[in-house]
Amino acid sequence: MTSRYKSYVAIEDLESHIGETVTLNGWVYDKTEKGKLIFIKLRDGSGTVQCVLFKPNVSEEIAAAAGSLSQESSVSITGTVRSEQRSPTGVELDVTDVRVWQVSKDYPITPKEHGVEFLMEHRHLWLRSARQHAIMRVRSAVVKAIRDFFDGNGFRLMDSPIFTPNACEGTSTLFETEYFDLGKAYLTQSGQLYAEASAMALGKVYTFGPTFRAEKSKTRRHLTEFWMVEPEMAYFDLNDDMDLAEDLVEYIVQYVLKTCQRELATLGRDISKLEAVRRPFYRMSYTEAVEWLNKNEIKLNRKQADGSEIQIDFPWGEDFGAPQEEAIMQQFDKPCIIHRYPTEVKAFYMKRDPENVKTVLAMDMLAPEGAGEIIGGSQREDDHDQLLERILHENLPQEAFQWYLDLRKFGSVPHSGFGLGVERTVKWITGAEHIREVIPFPRMIYRIVP
Amino acid sequence: MTSRYKSYVAIEDLESHIGETVTLNGWVYDKTEKGKLIFIKLRDGSGTVQCVLFKPNVSEEIAAAAGSLSQESSVSITGTVRSEQRSPTGVELDVTDVRVWQVSKDYPITPKEHGVEFLMEHRHLWLRSARQHAIMRVRSAVVKAIRDFFDGNGFRLMDSPIFTPNACEGTSTLFETEYFDLGKAYLTQSGQLYAEASAMALGKVYTFGPTFRAEKSKTRRHLTEFWMVEPEMAYFDLNDDMDLAEDLVEYIVQYVLKTCQRELATLGRDISKLEAVRRPFYRMSYTEAVEWLNKNEIKLNRKQADGSEIQIDFPWGEDFGAPQEEAIMQQFDKPCIIHRYPTEVKAFYMKRDPENVKTVLAMDMLAPEGAGEIIGGSQREDDHDQLLERILHENLPQEAFQWYLDLRKFGSVPHSGFGLGVERTVKWITGAEHIREVIPFPRMIYRIVP
Repeated sequence: MTSRYKSYVAIEDLESHIGETVTLNGWVYDKTEKGKLIFIKLRDGSGTVQCVLFKPNVSEEIAAAAGSLSQESSVSITGTVRSEQRSPTGVELDVTDVRVWQVSKDYPITPKEHGVEFLMEHRHLWLRSARQHAIMRVRSAVVKAIRDFFDGNGFRLMDSPIFTPNACEGTSTLFETEYFDLGKAYLTQSGQLYAEASAMALGKVYTFGPTFRAEKSKTRRHLTEFWMVEPEMAYFDLNDDMDLAEDLVEYIVQYVLKTCQRELATLGRDISKLEAVRRPFYRMSYTEAVEWLNKNEIKLNRKQADGSEIQIDFPWGEDFGAPQEEAIMQQFDKPCIIHRYPTEVKAFYMKRDPENVKTVLAMDMLAPEGAGEIIGGSQREDDHDQLLERILHENLPQEAFQWYLDLRKFGSVPHSGFGLGVERTVKWITGAEHIREVIPFPRMIYRIVP
Repeated sequence: MTSRYKSYVAIEDLESHIGETVTLNGWVYDKTEKGKLIFIKLRDGSGTVQCVLFKPNVSEEIAAAAGSLSQESSVSITGTVRSEQRSPTGVELDVTDVRVWQVSKDYPITPKEHGVEFLMEHRHLWLRSARQHAIMRVRSAVVKAIRDFFDGNGFRLMDSPIFTPNACEGTSTLFETEYFDLGKAYLTQSGQLYAEASAMALGKVYTFGPTFRAEKSKTRRHLTEFWMVEPEMAYFDLNDDMDLAEDLVEYIVQYVLKTCQRELATLGRDISKLEAVRRPFYRMSYTEAVEWLNKNEIKLNRKQADGSEIQIDFPWGEDFGAPQEEAIMQQFDKPCIIHRYPTEVKAFYMKRDPENVKTVLAMDMLAPEGAGEIIGGSQREDDHDQLLERILHENLPQEAFQWYLDLRKFGSVPHSGFGLGVERTVKWITGAEHIREVIPFPRMIYRIVP
């Protein structure tokens, strides 16, 4: 029993149907008439193809139907697939029949320039534009690459919960909701703590879901709702963690290069920059990075008590901001991992470096071309008493972390993990200007519609 | 450059290392001593293997270390892999070295029976038990099967947003949160409306994420946070939709049968029941189902004004509840799709059946063995005026649906989709008793920890 839907031919598969008569189902991207010819650029979501209607070949009704088509009209077009080397898709369709589903009137997004606010208001339609369409297909490929990588390397998906009972790191950047008679629940900012419990049960796991931050940031890198994949591995130390992170990012970029050639071309992406993303990446310790900044006289602006600003050498112990990260990455054509950050600027669950207790076994991966941090990770503190000390030192509620401390009581093992931000990765790979373009329906401090 | 982590050997891969000396990293599941022999059942998340230590073969220190191991102690064990047909995994390990990471004291979950509340409180540890471990691995396989199915059939992932601005179907079952200066945001109950917009841009899409329902249901089938995959296809009618749903469910079940034999054995699942899940499934219209109920005298309990209950014939127009669904499914050894439900019991966006305007082109798939509904879907209303009429009829805020109505103005096409609940599917396939067991950290009306 073959389903009717299986007989549908997608534009992206047309090259394997040369010489055949097929029916395509899609929307009009563009239409021009020239004497007895009507050229219809048809998109169906999988690709775009030029359909050529020669009026003497069809009835008057069909020619009239084709002539009525406007931008974004929905239409099924039947015709013969012909090889055409001048076409970007390698084929064209010689039209024999046209079935109009709806003639679209006054489609709001025309080929002229539109303001960002207007486009965001019309995000449900903007997604049909060639550039947005290409970004979405790359996004889909990035997620598939991530999952294939982990599924193919012995990892199991373990979904961390979205509702969390505790405001682990303060409530200021958390979204909260009433939860029946149990008080407030908070939307997760990271599935890591749960992933650690899962790793003790399943060895190598990843959690992959939306995460939430109620940050009042209006930068081009911030969303309130974004997707993050977080692998967590029992018996992995920091070096294993960094190796895995490099393997993952190399795999993602090479997968996109292999499967999204048309999309990258549509986006005008410089392919050579992506082709360079091959292991090994660069690595330096935080301390080396600070030395490099100061050797190269990349100063830090510091406000004085009187409000004036002075420029100072970058002080060891301070966290890097975008200016430092960008300066460091200027010299690199592929990602760089910075590791072993000062304890004070990193989270309580990171393991102290046994060789320098002022630092923790943390690592961040920065992407080139100004893309910034795409990965943050660490080896986790596996010693019960050390972890408890850090929890108390940061005035966190011990009771709420009892289950997390349990993991250090019952068969504690060295373990590590990291989080990779999907949107930041897609932004980097596609070269998109703003993070709002790399998720279907972006949520930002000032936007929640459509 | 080979990473250290790549040299780790997983227990599930041991059969390809027979005769080799390997180091396994894991936890003690069980230990017994018998004269000069110590038998350690080691689990590493990928599987379980028996490690045999013959004391005369190792130093006294190593023998003592092995002797100290308790349940859930963390340990690296080195030894030679030996073929052993009596073992469920086909191999055993002859131990040459033991490195103890932590001796676990008073592990709370012992082989004796524990109450459900106790186990739920210790969910972070309970996941290590053989049965929970097996369910989680099947869950991971189910999700992988779903994604492979869609990715392999020309679908693109298009994540629908979690934050939605409108309470589309009333606020009573919605979780809400303050959203900066924009008022309230609601957590999504379904990504469908957004998936429809995405399908008009990319043709065939699926959205796959957590969804939320603040329902005060305490049944064995309800969670407040659960995962749902929702495909949406342009140019698919109801028949295409049902065909696709059957293909998907057959694929999932056969994939689990192929890849999770050990897990299904651990769970004591009757494999023959799953092997029967082959297309075509059963199908009947709602009207046929009502006739069947009445012919078979499956009565409906109805409360009278005075509080007493009487049994009546099932009236056409009433929605099915669990008793009706279970009665219908008694006769079937594989899933059954019920289609064309009364308009009044279904959502506003479903397309009227042109052959009977009292019904809509909806379909639900019920799974056998009392598993209940695992899929709900429909062909969507693609006519602008019909849809608007339904929106007004249900007193929904027209303004909030303007973008959704746009999809019917600018190149509207016939389109369909459905949602498959991950947890209900995993519950069915694993035969788990309660839905709380099929998600790593379940969230229910009375539970949000750990």
